[in-house]
Amino acid sequence: MTARDIAPAGVHIAEIASFHLGGHAVRLSGRPKRVMQVSGDGIRREVDMNGTHVTGQLYTQQIRLMQPRHSAPALFWHGGGMTGAAWETTPDGRPGWQWLFLRAGFDVLVTDAVERGRASWSPWPEIYRTAPIFRSKEESWTLFRIGADQNYADAPEHRVPFEGQRFPVSGFDALCAQLVPRWTDHDELSLCAYEQLLRKVGPVNLIVHSQGGWFALNLAHRIPELIRAVVLLEPAGAPSLSAEQLHRAASVPHLVIWGDYFDRTPQWRTYREPVTGYARQLAQAGGRIDILDLPDHGIRGNSHLPMMDDNSEELAARVIDWLVAQD
Amino acid sequence: MTARDIAPAGVHIAEIASFHLGGHAVRLSGRPKRVMQVSGDGIRREVDMNGTHVTGQLYTQQIRLMQPRHSAPALFWHGGGMTGAAWETTPDGRPGWQWLFLRAGFDVLVTDAVERGRASWSPWPEIYRTAPIFRSKEESWTLFRIGADQNYADAPEHRVPFEGQRFPVSGFDALCAQLVPRWTDHDELSLCAYEQLLRKVGPVNLIVHSQGGWFALNLAHRIPELIRAVVLLEPAGAPSLSAEQLHRAASVPHLVIWGDYFDRTPQWRTYREPVTGYARQLAQAGGRIDILDLPDHGIRGNSHLPMMDDNSEELAARVIDWLVAQD
Repeated sequence: MTARDIAPAGVHIAEIASFHLGGHAVRLSGRPKRVMQVSGDGIRREVDMNGTHVTGQLYTQQIRLMQPRHSAPALFWHGGGMTGAAWETTPDGRPGWQWLFLRAGFDVLVTDAVERGRASWSPWPEIYRTAPIFRSKEESWTLFRIGADQNYADAPEHRVPFEGQRFPVSGFDALCAQLVPRWTDHDELSLCAYEQLLRKVGPVNLIVHSQGGWFALNLAHRIPELIRAVVLLEPAGAPSLSAEQLHRAASVPHLVIWGDYFDRTPQWRTYREPVTGYARQLAQAGGRIDILDLPDHGIRGNSHLPMMDDNSEELAARVIDWLVAQD
Repeated sequence: MTARDIAPAGVHIAEIASFHLGGHAVRLSGRPKRVMQVSGDGIRREVDMNGTHVTGQLYTQQIRLMQPRHSAPALFWHGGGMTGAAWETTPDGRPGWQWLFLRAGFDVLVTDAVERGRASWSPWPEIYRTAPIFRSKEESWTLFRIGADQNYADAPEHRVPFEGQRFPVSGFDALCAQLVPRWTDHDELSLCAYEQLLRKVGPVNLIVHSQGGWFALNLAHRIPELIRAVVLLEPAGAPSLSAEQLHRAASVPHLVIWGDYFDRTPQWRTYREPVTGYARQLAQAGGRIDILDLPDHGIRGNSHLPMMDDNSEELAARVIDWLVAQD
């Protein structure tokens, strides 16, 4: 399949649904009751936060086609500091991968991970142990590999991105408006909810970004039978696996996509190295792992956010081609 | 239009998009930098939260039909402690109002208000002034008018709802999984973002729940030209308006829908009284405000969440009939 096969306009949809999944109940006690104005001018009521709260759940929006053309859905997991909105409209207003994959005939699921977006989050230190971290525009500029540290400016017209940058820099402020806080000690909580999701909706074509890659590679060996194929956009790290784990993960076809400017952002080499090691070990274990290093293929200028870059539609078509070829 | 006119299956959709809107940039400084593990086992990086952050933005998902049958879209605003997920699948798995209105020929927009869900939130006390509040299952049971305080139990099979309760009690835990924290001092921040949204997408058919009603009634007199009609499901309070403000709001047709069990939950009488006063004053000012008190029409058993109750499809059809009649 190529980009030309994507229908030009309109999708016949059977259902748009959503659900929360996973998590567990915890009890808060000993917090003082307060009388507060909560909604409406001057109307006060007692607020009592003691009692039972749900924590650790994730959110999924599920869109089913009337006539899907592929047997397994595309399931999207966002990266750290983001939500499912990362797969919707690009920051400069073009169709996101959610829509492109629907047009290409996939049923699509988009999640908000535990603690992010519509999945909700819990108070600390009462339920979560630690405080969250928040990503600034400055850090986003650097870590998303848009430009050099010193070339960020408050005024959009004074920002100087890397030469040839494909991220739509006119949408950088729109990107930053979609960032959400994150916690750094919830890997197992998130993995548990993601695993429950795969048990409910799998097998799937799993398409993940950044920190979502870390989660996906931790599940590929736990439940390979529920992952038809995994596409890793700029995965942030990879686990060290035992021979037995590698053997299990090797039954899942992997595609890894890397953008440009790694030599300009040393932190990203740190995340990339373990993925290179993982790929070598998986191949040695007989697994299929294709590495699409875009600059090596003459495609320069992609940021850490290839699904938002100016060639996002071309990259989606490549991913779709690859997924179809795994049949 | 009646429920029978809603197409039985499938909707031809032209676009699923989303955007963040509103908010402003604020600068954090003086927070210590920390080296932390953020994503990936054992990989550490410096986390620096100082810098520029966006605060006060909202999130909107926008679904456009290939052939809308109404000139103005349906715009949904959720209530306090909730997100746009409130308009998606009901807690027991039936189609939500988002889907029912798409099937009935409306373009649909669903928002997450400032500080809720995909809209993101900001740290306190650095940016927000106060801490948020969290809604427990116990408080939800009472304030959503599912049952009496003393009849909530941890075990679903031991919960005793009000007699004739239409809320799908089997989905009560699923409802609680979608609750999000809220702040109590952000009315103006939220109104500002909602007003920007109406300026971008209006005029709209505005359909709001609970705290969303408070926001809608505050905007009906500020920008009546952008609200074709407003449907208030169980609005949580109403503002006191001047004669001039009433005159402006009176150009917007209002429909208010009330469920059952007000005599069992005194707090709700407190929220309802100002709405009754608002309605009387608006009618005196020449405005049209229809009150659909469901028990008065022989429809008993609705909770504070009529869009999730077992007659949600019938109520959607009534609202659609009313919206069509405003032409």
